[in-house]
Amino acid sequence: MKKLTEKYNIIRKKINAYNFISFVTHWDSETEAPPGCFANRSRQIGIISEELYKIRTSKETALIINQLYKNRRRLDPLLAHEITVFKRNLTRMKKIPIKEYVQLQKLLAHSTKIWEHAKKTNDFTAFQPTLEKIVYYTKQQIKRMETKSLRGYDILLDKYERGYTTKQYDLFFQELKVNLVPFIHKVAGKKIDYNNDFLFKQYPTEKQKEFIAYLHSVFQYDPARGLTKESEHPFTTSFGPSDVRYANHFYESNFTSAIFSAIHELGHALYEQQGSPELEETLSWGGGSMALHESQSRFYENMIGRSRNFWKEHFPVLKTIFKKQLTGVTLRDFYRGINEVKPSLIRVNADELTYPVHIMIRYDIEKALFNDEILIKDLPQIWNDKVQEYLGISVPDDARGVLQDVHWAGGMFGYFPAYALGSAYAAQIYRTMNKDFNIMKSLRNKNTEEINNWLKINLHSFGSSKEPKVLFKHVARGTFNPKYYIKYLIKKYSKLYDIL
Amino acid sequence: MKKLTEKYNIIRKKINAYNFISFVTHWDSETEAPPGCFANRSRQIGIISEELYKIRTSKETALIINQLYKNRRRLDPLLAHEITVFKRNLTRMKKIPIKEYVQLQKLLAHSTKIWEHAKKTNDFTAFQPTLEKIVYYTKQQIKRMETKSLRGYDILLDKYERGYTTKQYDLFFQELKVNLVPFIHKVAGKKIDYNNDFLFKQYPTEKQKEFIAYLHSVFQYDPARGLTKESEHPFTTSFGPSDVRYANHFYESNFTSAIFSAIHELGHALYEQQGSPELEETLSWGGGSMALHESQSRFYENMIGRSRNFWKEHFPVLKTIFKKQLTGVTLRDFYRGINEVKPSLIRVNADELTYPVHIMIRYDIEKALFNDEILIKDLPQIWNDKVQEYLGISVPDDARGVLQDVHWAGGMFGYFPAYALGSAYAAQIYRTMNKDFNIMKSLRNKNTEEINNWLKINLHSFGSSKEPKVLFKHVARGTFNPKYYIKYLIKKYSKLYDIL
Repeated sequence: MKKLTEKYNIIRKKINAYNFISFVTHWDSETEAPPGCFANRSRQIGIISEELYKIRTSKETALIINQLYKNRRRLDPLLAHEITVFKRNLTRMKKIPIKEYVQLQKLLAHSTKIWEHAKKTNDFTAFQPTLEKIVYYTKQQIKRMETKSLRGYDILLDKYERGYTTKQYDLFFQELKVNLVPFIHKVAGKKIDYNNDFLFKQYPTEKQKEFIAYLHSVFQYDPARGLTKESEHPFTTSFGPSDVRYANHFYESNFTSAIFSAIHELGHALYEQQGSPELEETLSWGGGSMALHESQSRFYENMIGRSRNFWKEHFPVLKTIFKKQLTGVTLRDFYRGINEVKPSLIRVNADELTYPVHIMIRYDIEKALFNDEILIKDLPQIWNDKVQEYLGISVPDDARGVLQDVHWAGGMFGYFPAYALGSAYAAQIYRTMNKDFNIMKSLRNKNTEEINNWLKINLHSFGSSKEPKVLFKHVARGTFNPKYYIKYLIKKYSKLYDIL
Repeated sequence: MKKLTEKYNIIRKKINAYNFISFVTHWDSETEAPPGCFANRSRQIGIISEELYKIRTSKETALIINQLYKNRRRLDPLLAHEITVFKRNLTRMKKIPIKEYVQLQKLLAHSTKIWEHAKKTNDFTAFQPTLEKIVYYTKQQIKRMETKSLRGYDILLDKYERGYTTKQYDLFFQELKVNLVPFIHKVAGKKIDYNNDFLFKQYPTEKQKEFIAYLHSVFQYDPARGLTKESEHPFTTSFGPSDVRYANHFYESNFTSAIFSAIHELGHALYEQQGSPELEETLSWGGGSMALHESQSRFYENMIGRSRNFWKEHFPVLKTIFKKQLTGVTLRDFYRGINEVKPSLIRVNADELTYPVHIMIRYDIEKALFNDEILIKDLPQIWNDKVQEYLGISVPDDARGVLQDVHWAGGMFGYFPAYALGSAYAAQIYRTMNKDFNIMKSLRNKNTEEINNWLKINLHSFGSSKEPKVLFKHVARGTFNPKYYIKYLIKKYSKLYDIL
């Protein structure tokens, strides 16, 4: 047994090392790699992912995992959990021939660059053949992974959030639809009264960065264990608790975008930085699941970052940095400006209330796509129709429509629903935390220490050492129920829009 | 035979992939990785270098290489050369136990960070234990690699420049000493007459970067296949012709430093960018040797970048960018300012004439170190004594003395002599090129196309597909002779200093 775990330890270390170098390369690709390098880079990544695939699926690995799995009740809980997850993934991976696995990895090594170009030039057809390939390969893979209980799109959903398939998501989105859509209509019929001039001014990038540096200290993001850069699409990447980085995107004519992207990514980053350092040499560092990760980013972005009490403390600082633009702007104006509900085109800039609707659109489309009900070439039209149907607005171009998100270019189908689920998780976690201490009162301290600590103790420190559902139940002290999310949204926006 | 070369091709591709990810990680480490990440990073790099070591030295690899080596006369010349080099390295590597190999790699993964800190705090003792370990491990390795014909320090010298050992270098440096040192004394006795006020002004980093961006277009560095960043020590790194990057360091009170570092690194970068793209999937891309690489960086930096004709065209541009600082400064002043001979402390900022003396100091010390004649703890004193002896100046602190260069922290012993050799190569290559066309005339075109093309055809395109001596003989159309270097220096500085 000791020999077996020692052997497992070697495999585990190797997997971590290969993941590490893949993450470093990915970070480089997304933030600074020059355009001419991607043909060569894609070849190199293909070879490295093949090496990792071999380590994960070799006969020797399978033997060790299977033996440990049989004896999992005699292992310590952390190891037992890792072995269970490994065994589960191994069973799926083994069904995919290495060639098919590598061909998708190689494609994904440069597909986001193709998407980026297509988005920039507003040309869906430039991306279409690549997307067709990605979907084709993905379908090929899920076909191979199908079991009696898990088929088609459900395999992708379950990959990002274990235990959540169309059955659960259909119910979840139905609940949101029934309760939120009529409410959104009510809100949309009202006009919020405030002076919104400040939203249309120019905010120099350098000054935005200055304020965001201030936010880093407010949120206690540790600069000795991370860094920030720019990219087309904001994202966080983690090489372990000792190196957690995020990239942001700045618009001078839309300054709140970078601020809320920053707070969103800081939520992800804190989850990673606050992971237990002891986990760094295991496979259990990093967030517990996609929805749990999103619950943290959405928690910080919305529950904290879009609250009046937060800005009570920090709006004066923002005004000092943007004297010219914000002189005369009241906290009330600002608070309303960052919470105004307005059906809009871009998911990442959507208000908190219509946000889940953006997810429903993507969920519907992905489901239809993997049920072979629609074709890639029709995606722009289908997208535009859905936006019209759900949000009542028309899409002027594909850059602001079907091409807006990086996820599909990165092969991440089944990921979007976890965003909505994460938002709902966040509301329930907020409620539980608020029982332990008054969050809004705590915000007056001008830092998030109390909040960070609570999340560290109740969620972050565990990394991914337990099943997502177990982690959620622990941090929320109860099973998931979307009613808290609905209640939270209706309460907040009823007050803002004077409803009832 | 076909099967064998196919097998070799797989090994070759793997080695390239592992080198690629190592280079990406190294670039990240040197330019942006946060301080807290290095403990974890060093572990991951240790594992990856172990993997690469195994691929390079496995029984299967050895079998393939040995069989191909036996049949090398039947292979195409590129492949035959690769196999010969592989066989040579394999024989050496096989003598080093994997544990010893990995322990040094792991140490080198964070040793430059320790050096950086020691340099910043001017504290040699903070670096001493690390340096002792590096030297200890290196000695351990060369002990294992010794053969009848190659021992001690010679193994390191030969590693960076095949065929050059203390025998050749002793002769080379003796030649320089005999001919240059008396000349340097003559020059040092004279005062160059010009107004040097501009050297002591402040030059904002942003504006320095603006001028360097202009230099990129002058030197036709392709931004689609590279990028630039900042680091403590300027350096170039290449992931293949399609991605060649360099880092620079800026001083507002010493603006010529970044300019000449840039031109120096651009020399390295052009060598890599102009390599034949067909070589990218072989092991023969990249420069032919260290001295050849330095010959290119020193060629661009000195023969081109410190020439009067070059600045005749580009000084007006520099004056436009630094209006305030350079108004009234003549081309004559500037030319003299960038070529003034002055015994100085820092190698990378040394003038062209005293530069080789800096190398002699390092060569003497390295030789003594690997002959077990001196101890690490005595290095600061030995360094200072040597500087006094050779350059007649006293060293005020270790940051400007023994701690100034990154090389030893990176385990690169035996590398420095190649700098002096490269400078001498450059002079001889310049002479040959000048027979084909008038270089100084060509500079009037405000770009270096003719020069780049000549070097591309005669050197760069070959990558490392031939032995360094063969490459040199081809580009210089003759065997190496230091007299051209000596002649070049004496001619240039006699004119500047009115000697004879």
